[in-house]
Amino acid sequence: MGEFVITGGHLVLPAGEGRVKVQAGDLFISGGEIAEVAGPGTPAGSGSIKTVDATGCAVMPGLVNAHCHGAMSLFRGYADDLPLMRWLEEWIWPAEAHLTPEDVYWGTALAVLEMLRGGVTTFADMYFHMDEAARATADLGMRGILSEGLIGIKRGGQEDLYRSRALFERWHGSAGGRLQVQLGPHAPYTCPPEYMEQVISLARELGCGIHIHVAETTDEVEEIRQEYGMSPVQYLDRVGLLDGLPLIAAHCVYVDEEDLRLLKTAGVGVVHCPGSNQKLGSGVAPLGQMLEAGVTVGLGTDGACSTGRLDLWSEMRAAALMQKAVHRDPERIPAATMLYLATRGGAKACGLEDVGELSVGMKADLAIVDLSAPHLVPHHDILSLLAYSAGPSDVRDVYVEGQPVVSGRRTVRLSEQGIVQKALMAAEDLVGRVGLV
Amino acid sequence: MGEFVITGGHLVLPAGEGRVKVQAGDLFISGGEIAEVAGPGTPAGSGSIKTVDATGCAVMPGLVNAHCHGAMSLFRGYADDLPLMRWLEEWIWPAEAHLTPEDVYWGTALAVLEMLRGGVTTFADMYFHMDEAARATADLGMRGILSEGLIGIKRGGQEDLYRSRALFERWHGSAGGRLQVQLGPHAPYTCPPEYMEQVISLARELGCGIHIHVAETTDEVEEIRQEYGMSPVQYLDRVGLLDGLPLIAAHCVYVDEEDLRLLKTAGVGVVHCPGSNQKLGSGVAPLGQMLEAGVTVGLGTDGACSTGRLDLWSEMRAAALMQKAVHRDPERIPAATMLYLATRGGAKACGLEDVGELSVGMKADLAIVDLSAPHLVPHHDILSLLAYSAGPSDVRDVYVEGQPVVSGRRTVRLSEQGIVQKALMAAEDLVGRVGLV
Repeated sequence: MGEFVITGGHLVLPAGEGRVKVQAGDLFISGGEIAEVAGPGTPAGSGSIKTVDATGCAVMPGLVNAHCHGAMSLFRGYADDLPLMRWLEEWIWPAEAHLTPEDVYWGTALAVLEMLRGGVTTFADMYFHMDEAARATADLGMRGILSEGLIGIKRGGQEDLYRSRALFERWHGSAGGRLQVQLGPHAPYTCPPEYMEQVISLARELGCGIHIHVAETTDEVEEIRQEYGMSPVQYLDRVGLLDGLPLIAAHCVYVDEEDLRLLKTAGVGVVHCPGSNQKLGSGVAPLGQMLEAGVTVGLGTDGACSTGRLDLWSEMRAAALMQKAVHRDPERIPAATMLYLATRGGAKACGLEDVGELSVGMKADLAIVDLSAPHLVPHHDILSLLAYSAGPSDVRDVYVEGQPVVSGRRTVRLSEQGIVQKALMAAEDLVGRVGLV
Repeated sequence: MGEFVITGGHLVLPAGEGRVKVQAGDLFISGGEIAEVAGPGTPAGSGSIKTVDATGCAVMPGLVNAHCHGAMSLFRGYADDLPLMRWLEEWIWPAEAHLTPEDVYWGTALAVLEMLRGGVTTFADMYFHMDEAARATADLGMRGILSEGLIGIKRGGQEDLYRSRALFERWHGSAGGRLQVQLGPHAPYTCPPEYMEQVISLARELGCGIHIHVAETTDEVEEIRQEYGMSPVQYLDRVGLLDGLPLIAAHCVYVDEEDLRLLKTAGVGVVHCPGSNQKLGSGVAPLGQMLEAGVTVGLGTDGACSTGRLDLWSEMRAAALMQKAVHRDPERIPAATMLYLATRGGAKACGLEDVGELSVGMKADLAIVDLSAPHLVPHHDILSLLAYSAGPSDVRDVYVEGQPVVSGRRTVRLSEQGIVQKALMAAEDLVGRVGLV
């Protein structure tokens, strides 16, 4: 791993209390970490090493997609504008039954490619055939927190636990530490208490975190209330999921004050997925209340077939605009907060202590955003441009742990065209096998 | 004007009742119009003319931005996350007082550049120093419906009317008919009845349309109710604005059933601006009810400083997702409807009978969208990809009246870098003059 300096950019730096700020300066990268953050005019690093010119660019922590189903990119646009359960039962689940490990490799590769190109350096992924998802993530150089989805109510739930253990043993800490493995009990309504207890016991044995969907729809809330007489978050508490295990809780659209207190006390990382919640008609999560309650919050895209894009820029915009509209308050969730949530917030939600912030000792996961396109001019307020005006196509270079993964808007490691072609073929073939189109 | 054929693309064609559909085929363009729409395998046009290969692309009507303040792109990010009136009174109006005609030229050029690059071929613009806006629009080859904003309650309202008349005489029907001029009374709360009557009388004399903001915020609704005892739309009716004049009514966030009936009966073109309404905390317009009531609806970005981007793709997404979320109904405003609103809907709202649709005799205003980027793969459903996954960076070629204005993602007529540099300088200089930063 080399040493280099990124010079002349607008650095997006931590500003305390869940916010970021912008300051001109240089970054010195060494050994995959940020070794120095220097103010304007102060040369960073030694004069003799490689220099990356970021003049006219923003230099920011890589975006963190804290809830995703990467390989579902194969189903992008496959079934749209449908209610969640019909969408799952009539379209997605029948198609998923035909997915091969190779499909998951190319679907995940397509997802990782899209994300890296858009400045996302870390994703938390939950899906099937996760060995192949791990392989694709490793091959493309991304940071991944991977879990196999576990459905306790279906046959084979036990086998799935063995497979998750094997996945952990094979991949956790691999690719130079870029890959981590967690357990992925799907949701309260698909994992009864006895199964949750087995999941928790395995997580404690392996020392790994857990990734789950919680309180996504009113249907779920009603089902859990009927079955257990409590909210989905209270259910997590009851089965022991809030007892100190690192936990990623995706969605949390329907959480009340007591739920937020529980989530905050247990240090749960809540992942707000505004695009998916909106597109599936699930509702609007109380993002402002979550932040006021001191809950750790990150952003997630969910799968490409529920939201259309694996694009954290769209999610930032959707999250901020939605809150402002629904509460009729333009001051709600300002740009500095939104950029924090999309970077350090997401990393914290995923339990990553050394990711998501441009400060000394943190992993050099970062994106250089070219501010020269017409839609990013003029430059009155770089944070505003990043939160409201920029998009994936503005990302010029991306580094994960100091290694270039996107350079001049092209992936460094694998052929983009190759991945796109393989994914196109896999998707076509899959639809043929399912016989639905 | 030459003849050419666009071959091998996925054509976005009218499907009746406010929807579009996708069908493989070729387009034959002649004399700036669509001369033939041919099915797959049928060669269109004659074999000897120029061919544009659109294999792997969608070919769609150019997007219509039916409400914009182009030159406000100079204020993009200038003041953010603020309530509407504070934003206007403390930031925007003081800065606008310093705007020169040259600023408006470069600000509009920047806006037109951003829009053309993103596949927008028509915009309805309301601002000041509109001669310069007209010049920029003409220079870049866009279609524009231009109006000077008229504030009846300020001194000089009378002079403004003379200036609008001169603007009409100079520019209406110019640039080969690409430019039209309307009158732009700002809003019910800034134009009292006597002034509105003068505006209407001038519009009748010139035979031109009118562009106005209506029912954007609860403040406006309350003000008009207190002053006149009626809703803003009823106010339009009372002052005679609903008596058969072509009318573009931007926003209409707060409209009830009676208002919708009035808007429908008068054939008003309502422009839904979801991004601006969300970002300024104005609220959520009842898009579904508007469509059910049979009102003509288009989409608008409003100015770049209220919404961050002049990007119809973001507006499509914001409009659809917002409706689905607020009504908890994923079936609401499907992709086929949203694409109609962003094209033919907007053109109708602007009173353009021969724009916004790929059918014989319509103006050849169109965008070719490259579907090869990772975020547009696979190709299960092209309409879904266009409504939910595509963005400005996917637009490869743009034609206005059969003339190429963007080719291979670059503007054809003026230097992009030149416009960007001039706009950067104008914005910096302006902020210096205002002395606020």
